[in-house]
Amino acid sequence: MTATTVVPDGTLTRDVVVAPGMCSGGSLIFGRIGDWTWASVAQSCGVNVYAARTVTGDPAYLSFYYYRVRGGAVVHPHGLTFGDELTVTSRVFQLGGQSVLTLHRLAPVGLFPPGEPLAAKEFYERPHPDCMYAENFNRWLARGTAGSNQGLTPLAPPDFAYEHLPVLPNEYSPRTEAGRARAEGGFHPSGPEGFAEVGQARTSEHVLDVVRDLNGAGLMYFASYFSVFDTALLASWRALGRTDERFLRRRVIDQRIGYFGNADPGTVFAVTLRLWRDERDPEREIADLVMRDRATGRFLAATAIETGGPA
Amino acid sequence: MTATTVVPDGTLTRDVVVAPGMCSGGSLIFGRIGDWTWASVAQSCGVNVYAARTVTGDPAYLSFYYYRVRGGAVVHPHGLTFGDELTVTSRVFQLGGQSVLTLHRLAPVGLFPPGEPLAAKEFYERPHPDCMYAENFNRWLARGTAGSNQGLTPLAPPDFAYEHLPVLPNEYSPRTEAGRARAEGGFHPSGPEGFAEVGQARTSEHVLDVVRDLNGAGLMYFASYFSVFDTALLASWRALGRTDERFLRRRVIDQRIGYFGNADPGTVFAVTLRLWRDERDPEREIADLVMRDRATGRFLAATAIETGGPA
Repeated sequence: MTATTVVPDGTLTRDVVVAPGMCSGGSLIFGRIGDWTWASVAQSCGVNVYAARTVTGDPAYLSFYYYRVRGGAVVHPHGLTFGDELTVTSRVFQLGGQSVLTLHRLAPVGLFPPGEPLAAKEFYERPHPDCMYAENFNRWLARGTAGSNQGLTPLAPPDFAYEHLPVLPNEYSPRTEAGRARAEGGFHPSGPEGFAEVGQARTSEHVLDVVRDLNGAGLMYFASYFSVFDTALLASWRALGRTDERFLRRRVIDQRIGYFGNADPGTVFAVTLRLWRDERDPEREIADLVMRDRATGRFLAATAIETGGPA
Repeated sequence: MTATTVVPDGTLTRDVVVAPGMCSGGSLIFGRIGDWTWASVAQSCGVNVYAARTVTGDPAYLSFYYYRVRGGAVVHPHGLTFGDELTVTSRVFQLGGQSVLTLHRLAPVGLFPPGEPLAAKEFYERPHPDCMYAENFNRWLARGTAGSNQGLTPLAPPDFAYEHLPVLPNEYSPRTEAGRARAEGGFHPSGPEGFAEVGQARTSEHVLDVVRDLNGAGLMYFASYFSVFDTALLASWRALGRTDERFLRRRVIDQRIGYFGNADPGTVFAVTLRLWRDERDPEREIADLVMRDRATGRFLAATAIETGGPA
């Protein structure tokens, strides 16, 4: 990986050769994009995001609250392999004093001239059909109770500088989308318009994996939510008679996750999945999944995964 | 992460701030070290390791055959957290025409003067007590049968340049250690000397996780072997009445893995674990684990994990 280049409007660019630790193996690409978000915020906001502290000296975490990724015809999350060469362009936007928005474009190397900026309009209205895009809405959180992953409270470190960041036009703000999913218990509680339900709702249980799911601060790792949801999706696909090979080749067009709660070791997740098929394009499906703490019913996360046929 | 610096003797140095994608969350640090190995070999051997081809044009993989990691008092595999600052020094050595050896030292930033080289003697005889070290013995493999992960055969790409690399003194070669583990069915088939067995051998079963365990080329990901072994270790610790918290705080002093076979989706691993305790230091234990394909008995991998008390 070459060093990051920063251009005057705050856009960050890096050329990346996809290595084993950035593709497949579960949610590695989502984890890597999240690392780029942290690096972008560190570079743009004058704060050491890796060791941030609240005014009272407790650790503050730049947690993932809403994560959206859109796959393109050439670059998509589960289609990456060793040696793919990407230009990653990142830009950080204001989203109030407790949170921040980071956009990333993953383009095949050479698709754009060097230093091509990333405008919000491209991201939300005119995405390049070949590229993958990611949107990370992060909120500063601190533990409410030492040693517990429940009851995290919003609290930014005092050195978090955000007023100089570009402002995101209101119509693009992910607050509405994330807030609605949280209030309504999922992204598509009554199904996406123009889609017909396939099979029946299906609930599977998953134990928080102490070996794989905790991050370096002992919190459930944001990238592991992708893996838990994918495990539920795979079970549902298998129940429909689909092969693992087809699952591995799936092309994700759009996936969004809302993170509404963290979890302690010992937690059992109840994940409820409903699957919907586009009435005009049967290759296009949306899986809507909701993750709850089985013991308490606490709403932990939701995702909508849109998959399509071959590009 | 800053760009990599290459000094004239072929040593590569990079300063790293530990991000969420490099610590905990299972085997992320082992995956990242593996990526550094690939980057080091790419830089040192004139070959595009990410897209290497055999003479007949088939993909050649710089596969992991033997992976050893030693934890120090300050830097150790499961003790890393966000914001830790490390200087990573890497060096690539000759190991014949079909394989290559890469050594890494992960030192706290500032421990050594900038550009401090990494000699084989330091690695094998005089490791700094604060540092973590990793040794990756990689072999070039190609698939014997398209679409199958079994019967991989040694085959280096024709542009793999190795004769200019420093020669590793014979007494340090990991060939003997890896070969013996392969021939004898594990690293400590009759227990390490001076250690007494704790409890009884225990076999657990683990299904290859299609969501998490395959890499971008559809092979079982080398870092996932660490996670499968750790899952078996956790089960064994729980059976001894130990808490998950203690497991998460474990300090790995030395771990070696021999990779003797890959596996296809659908494989069930039978992992047999024996645990040994140092008779002079009861905090010091060695877990010896062997992974086989349950269906065929095929020997896939072995590991020895040495843990110690607080540094």
